[in-house]
Amino acid sequence: MDLSTLSNHGTICQMARAPVKRRLERPPLLTTIKPDRADGRRRVVIESVTPEIDAGQFAAKRTVGERVTVEADVFADGHDALACVLRWRHESSQLWSDVPMVPVVNDRWRGEFMVSELGRYFYTIQGWVDAFETWSRQFAKRVEAGHDITLELEVAARMIEAAAPRADGSDSNRLMAYAAAIRKGPSSASSALAGDLPQLMERYADKSFAVTYARELQVTVDPELASFSSWYELFPRSAGDPAQHGTFRDVEKRLPGLAEMGFNVLYLPPIHPIGRTHRKGANNSTKAGPDEPGSPWAIGSEEGGHKSINPRLGTMEDFQHLLGAADKQGMQVALDIAFQCSPDHPYTREHPEWFKHRPDGTIQYAENPPKKYEDIFPFDFETEHWRELWDELLSIVLFWIDHGVTIFRVDNPHTKPFPFWEWLIGEVKREHPDVILLAEAFTRPKVMYRLAKVGFTQSYTYFAWRNTASELVQYFTELSQPPIREYFRPNLWPNTPDILTEYLQTGGRPAFAARLILAATLGASYGIYGPAFELCEARARESGSEEYLDSEKYQIRKWDYNSPDSLRELITLVNKVRIENPALHSDRGLRFHPTENDQLIAYTKTTPDLADVVLTVVNVDPHHTQAGMVTLPLEDLGIRRDRGFQAHELLSGARYLWNGPRNYVEINPHSIPAQIFRFRRRLRSEHDFEYFL
Amino acid sequence: MDLSTLSNHGTICQMARAPVKRRLERPPLLTTIKPDRADGRRRVVIESVTPEIDAGQFAAKRTVGERVTVEADVFADGHDALACVLRWRHESSQLWSDVPMVPVVNDRWRGEFMVSELGRYFYTIQGWVDAFETWSRQFAKRVEAGHDITLELEVAARMIEAAAPRADGSDSNRLMAYAAAIRKGPSSASSALAGDLPQLMERYADKSFAVTYARELQVTVDPELASFSSWYELFPRSAGDPAQHGTFRDVEKRLPGLAEMGFNVLYLPPIHPIGRTHRKGANNSTKAGPDEPGSPWAIGSEEGGHKSINPRLGTMEDFQHLLGAADKQGMQVALDIAFQCSPDHPYTREHPEWFKHRPDGTIQYAENPPKKYEDIFPFDFETEHWRELWDELLSIVLFWIDHGVTIFRVDNPHTKPFPFWEWLIGEVKREHPDVILLAEAFTRPKVMYRLAKVGFTQSYTYFAWRNTASELVQYFTELSQPPIREYFRPNLWPNTPDILTEYLQTGGRPAFAARLILAATLGASYGIYGPAFELCEARARESGSEEYLDSEKYQIRKWDYNSPDSLRELITLVNKVRIENPALHSDRGLRFHPTENDQLIAYTKTTPDLADVVLTVVNVDPHHTQAGMVTLPLEDLGIRRDRGFQAHELLSGARYLWNGPRNYVEINPHSIPAQIFRFRRRLRSEHDFEYFL
Repeated sequence: MDLSTLSNHGTICQMARAPVKRRLERPPLLTTIKPDRADGRRRVVIESVTPEIDAGQFAAKRTVGERVTVEADVFADGHDALACVLRWRHESSQLWSDVPMVPVVNDRWRGEFMVSELGRYFYTIQGWVDAFETWSRQFAKRVEAGHDITLELEVAARMIEAAAPRADGSDSNRLMAYAAAIRKGPSSASSALAGDLPQLMERYADKSFAVTYARELQVTVDPELASFSSWYELFPRSAGDPAQHGTFRDVEKRLPGLAEMGFNVLYLPPIHPIGRTHRKGANNSTKAGPDEPGSPWAIGSEEGGHKSINPRLGTMEDFQHLLGAADKQGMQVALDIAFQCSPDHPYTREHPEWFKHRPDGTIQYAENPPKKYEDIFPFDFETEHWRELWDELLSIVLFWIDHGVTIFRVDNPHTKPFPFWEWLIGEVKREHPDVILLAEAFTRPKVMYRLAKVGFTQSYTYFAWRNTASELVQYFTELSQPPIREYFRPNLWPNTPDILTEYLQTGGRPAFAARLILAATLGASYGIYGPAFELCEARARESGSEEYLDSEKYQIRKWDYNSPDSLRELITLVNKVRIENPALHSDRGLRFHPTENDQLIAYTKTTPDLADVVLTVVNVDPHHTQAGMVTLPLEDLGIRRDRGFQAHELLSGARYLWNGPRNYVEINPHSIPAQIFRFRRRLRSEHDFEYFL
Repeated sequence: MDLSTLSNHGTICQMARAPVKRRLERPPLLTTIKPDRADGRRRVVIESVTPEIDAGQFAAKRTVGERVTVEADVFADGHDALACVLRWRHESSQLWSDVPMVPVVNDRWRGEFMVSELGRYFYTIQGWVDAFETWSRQFAKRVEAGHDITLELEVAARMIEAAAPRADGSDSNRLMAYAAAIRKGPSSASSALAGDLPQLMERYADKSFAVTYARELQVTVDPELASFSSWYELFPRSAGDPAQHGTFRDVEKRLPGLAEMGFNVLYLPPIHPIGRTHRKGANNSTKAGPDEPGSPWAIGSEEGGHKSINPRLGTMEDFQHLLGAADKQGMQVALDIAFQCSPDHPYTREHPEWFKHRPDGTIQYAENPPKKYEDIFPFDFETEHWRELWDELLSIVLFWIDHGVTIFRVDNPHTKPFPFWEWLIGEVKREHPDVILLAEAFTRPKVMYRLAKVGFTQSYTYFAWRNTASELVQYFTELSQPPIREYFRPNLWPNTPDILTEYLQTGGRPAFAARLILAATLGASYGIYGPAFELCEARARESGSEEYLDSEKYQIRKWDYNSPDSLRELITLVNKVRIENPALHSDRGLRFHPTENDQLIAYTKTTPDLADVVLTVVNVDPHHTQAGMVTLPLEDLGIRRDRGFQAHELLSGARYLWNGPRNYVEINPHSIPAQIFRFRRRLRSEHDFEYFL
């Protein structure tokens, strides 16, 4: 890229950093350790490790403070005892920490470690045949059978003596003393075994034939917001007074209200200058009037491109002031990354080589024949100059990071190559592990999963189009399965500026309320295209379309936030429930339950320690009252079967005494179409809860 | 190994081959192709390939003449058309053959190739963005929409011109002619597209940015007998006249009878000299009388070890004569490989370093405390001299291969290290891809699966202990799942010399008949410990034991083959059904069906083309007549729902007219406890069968 050319444009901010090092080779995401076959005496087998995504090609995802539970099949020939450790380290350290793994069932072993730092962790597994433990088990049986054990004691004494040189000074001496004691005979041997001899022998085990799993696996650790976030999307240009083009300053005025409602991410569509050529008018008209603002996704004009700000919204200072104001309210601002250009973008003149050209020399516009999108030029990722293109696109993300943005909603990532994203996200997160990228891909499932694998922190989902109880159960069961749940973090949106579903169009306020509660309780992360959702905007551009009438994508809208239709109170309440219940901060504890009514969906989320158990029941029929019997697996939820327990309904405040696994629920969608229960109880010990009234 | 020492023993045959090259490094079973990231324009993703076992670490298994159906998720960013080929080659060739893959559903692609040679095949997948096909699809839509297509024709003409240099002389000329034709306008373009232009453009596609899957995967191709075999086990020493020690010559006399019954593998327990020290007497007595023959698994005496023959059975010439005689009857002889020694084995003196020693200097006998097996010394695979030990054990297998044996039943492989087996089987099959090794492991499931992965051709199963219908359905459903079915070839034994199940002990003749039919129809490979099974021997050594009373393991037994109890006729009939029905030659077409009766199990096996469909219904209750309604998925079986079809019962010869999916079956276990139906029909075309009466 020619920086001198770029700097001719005052509004294109100069790259604020040293030239980015391009790494075309994949960063060391796949470290294959060659299995050590030089010694045929390494008898342990380690296989079927979880989590492991595509043979270790991709990292699992966690957030700070979470645990990584690792399992593997570990076994050897014969019947010898084994020992097994989980080895882990943060990328900043070369030193492995070893955690003992314990056998679960059927040769499966389990261990875990906690991730407390951002960035990448590595883990693998090591196992070895534990000769001393094998001896100990056999010894007990021999004694019981009354065998002569003289020789066996000598076998053990020799093993202990062999361990001594591996031990530290004092431990070494104690081992030698144990060896002598063992030789004295059965009773002295028994007291050695009852003492800390087994622990010492475990600590100084003979690992000469230990086997290390063939791969080092990885987990990417993101900030907590990556797994628990509540997004609110608004168009800044609609934030101003009537008949005015809104600005960042206007957006600031909305911040206290958004924070009060309980949102922690404010997402803004692109804030860059908007193209003039083929600008779209109201309702996607191909002709725009002179005052029409155009689509924010038609990025770039004489006023600049992806590193510039639309002057009608304000200046860079105004933008950064907004970031600061949001931060004071406990909110982060998410920017839109849309790698495409309007015909007026400076790139089209300075870097025509980044675009595909038609035989007549013009740049190829976006199209999906027979549809044409002449206001948009896609980049040509098959250009010979792809290296420079990649560098420039990365520099856009780094530019905004340098200006204080850490959350990005990435527009249509599925139309850019996967290797590009893998490289870009790797580069970004290497120095900025706190950055969150939400993939806006609504496309075929495997494409969406792949984008999550190559590094996107969160992903949009099909949630908007899953409206029946059975569709929701099926889809969220799929997302909860390993390995998908290890890398795909759903962010649930009941609407977006592109998506006004038929369910919302026809279901009225109960439909909006039901979708809100589903999104906010099924998903640890969810979002709404705020003004339209809050105010139950349900008018489609035309019948059969999911486009909004008078869509904000093409025009400024004034919203009456004081309308009696506003869902503001319910949203506030639901977000409060989310914040107060740790079970809703993660998607890992999701489980569905039968309701005996197709229109009622019921599911629990739980914290791993069962300290918080939340049951949500939603009536997905926006028209009629529905009732059913919800059947809960009480024991799995830590609830005793032999006494009543309190179900505290958090939206109404009502408290019910429930008894046994089957309980009656009746929901009128015209009041609130859902009930969210927290089961109240007194903790006696970690695994023995008592539910109180 | 010191050959000069060994050759002092006349009965130990000298190694008949050049010293075996030891390959400690795994043979190239895991070829990792570094993904080509040097060019960011390689946009295609290839993932979730099947079959692929443990990230390509192990090979799938097939037999000569079978097809390998390969599937993968293949996709790219955006909406461009893709092309995809399955690349395969036999290990003897460096040249890949490419087969087009076709999209199935949801970005899944499928292709297949046939394996016609023994040995290893490699396969992988290559995909690329197909620019011309993308253009063609869009072109059709543009024409339909009435767009101006002048520029589009020029785009195509340039693509065609660019393809010409990749084509052979005449094709190249034709491409240039097509380019000119396209430029002439829409109608001439349409006729070019209706001609063979698309095929030419496919053949000479631009693969500069093609992506090859990261791994080369493997399939091991075995002889047909590896998947379809009927084993008969007998102790040669019992084959003689009363009061005589049987010989190979006596075994030869039984061959015509066995062949007539339809067996194709005759399996002999170890034929080597038997140790004297701690020799076991009748019924596992620890004291043997001077004339007692001992257990054939206590291998080795002054008369030699694993490469020698027990002189009481005959000479090497006799043995090889037996092999020839069996071959003439269409049978192969399987030898037992039991890597363990009696205390009198020459190895114990010549290679004491291959055994574990107790502190008093004696060799450690086998034990499972508190049980001792003092007639057996296991090898110590953790010896420093493991390399020499491995070489010697391999030389035993190669010795018998050199003497004409190609099938081995391997005793207790799960008590020897997995790396040892992987190496040994790799070495054996590299030059002898026709060799079949059956793993006699009855141990934890993951250990059994791992043995199959590291290379065992067939595996014993838990079949003997799965006696209820639901147990059988569950277990064989597990074995039918991918990836298990790709590498684990079950060989079903209702009994062995070690296993006389309670079901057989208590169920009488109907139990034997039911188990025979289950083994022979559930498993493409099955076997019986013949004399005892044929004659319904059901007497256990004591109550609660699975050991036979007067077990042939420790004594010579005389069997009355003319007993009225003999199952000979039924066995002959069942094997005939097996031979005549290709559906029973493979385990891949197995599927269970509901019967509405817990005591009836029903399942079909089918050939891939549905030309042969066999339904087996077994009454697993050996005491009472059971009846039920069998429900079949007619369409999946190629049977029309709208007319009756003929169910030909192959054991009785009866023919029934069935109608619709639910049909009545009633089975009296005291006649034959099962019915085996073949559905008769006339073929109209490959996928349109008509069942006739």
